Amino acid sequence: MEVFIEPIGRLMNEFSKLPGVGKKTAQRYAYRVISMSEGEARTFAEAIIDVKRRVRFCKICGNFTEEEVCDICKTRDSSQICVVKEPKDVIALEKLHEYKGVYHVLHGVIDPMNGVGPNDIRIKDLLQRVGKGDVKEVIMATNPDVEGEATAMYIAKLLKPMGVTVTRIAHGVPIGSELEYADEVTLARALIERKEL
Amino acid sequence: MEVFIEPIGRLMNEFSKLPGVGKKTAQRYAYRVISMSEGEARTFAEAIIDVKRRVRFCKICGNFTEEEVCDICKTRDSSQICVVKEPKDVIALEKLHEYKGVYHVLHGVIDPMNGVGPNDIRIKDLLQRVGKGDVKEVIMATNPDVEGEATAMYIAKLLKPMGVTVTRIAHGVPIGSELEYADEVTLARALIERKEL
Repeated sequence: MEVFIEPIGRLMNEFSKLPGVGKKTAQRYAYRVISMSEGEARTFAEAIIDVKRRVRFCKICGNFTEEEVCDICKTRDSSQICVVKEPKDVIALEKLHEYKGVYHVLHGVIDPMNGVGPNDIRIKDLLQRVGKGDVKEVIMATNPDVEGEATAMYIAKLLKPMGVTVTRIAHGVPIGSELEYADEVTLARALIERKEL
Repeated sequence: MEVFIEPIGRLMNEFSKLPGVGKKTAQRYAYRVISMSEGEARTFAEAIIDVKRRVRFCKICGNFTEEEVCDICKTRDSSQICVVKEPKDVIALEKLHEYKGVYHVLHGVIDPMNGVGPNDIRIKDLLQRVGKGDVKEVIMATNPDVEGEATAMYIAKLLKPMGVTVTRIAHGVPIGSELEYADEVTLARALIERKEL
């Protein structure tokens, strides 16, 4: 005799597919659904179906959109392109309300260890965008890890001959943190990239 | 301009209704759904609808079941009833593969501070079950907190005149733990309820 009855076990299995969700959490989620009203559960299920039906990728920047071209590409300064790994990085930057340019989502980074080469991410599309001529600056905002750095360097090398300024987000100690707890690589980098006051 | 497009924001809002899910986690879950295939998303949505449609409460013990009476009530020793607060407690006990009796799920505990009185939980149903005569022992397995203790005491007082043995799960220091880290109330209880070896 199984501990969970079939429909509960099946829903738990579905919840387990979400990132970081183990069996215990999946059980709590499933029980929460059981305690929902029929209407609430239907709304939840429809939101899942709906997101798949309505969300697609902007044909210019590759970010999530409901239309062919996203609102950011439609309305913002297209002379400045910020290159990121994933759509969630766009969200992180948009929350600052600082950046006024557009984005380019690579949908990955070059990662030979996992079989991801330059042709597997949206580098060619980026070169085409820059090739059209009105781009002044490309900001490489890939993650400050090995793959992110390598991807930024690789793309910078391709873009520079095209007469565009290529910049990289600054590395250093996080503001509000303590030097004591900064990792050595970050601290060394912060020292090397020190600025005159 | 909202940071999230509408269908993503809506799905995040739905995920936020799950216990312990904040905005950041809801975003990760929503992005995982976007990266699913249409079929996977549909299976997920259907599991949610399905659990609401198929899961109901056993008319005897109050645990989750797909039929009128659950498998445990149908097949196990009904002379021993283990009283628990919620269906998830049944799962916790079933995982031990130790207990051979049946259950009674109260669907709550007496909690006057939150307006839950004896008539708001399934106490009357329990008295009726015991009143039918073939019950020998009722094990009170509500949580070892204030409300759980009070509920166990309250029910025990009602059951004792009916000539049934009422027991309470043991309290004490958890096995494998260190005395040093046990809370004072638990340790005091463990001392009082000491047993001869």
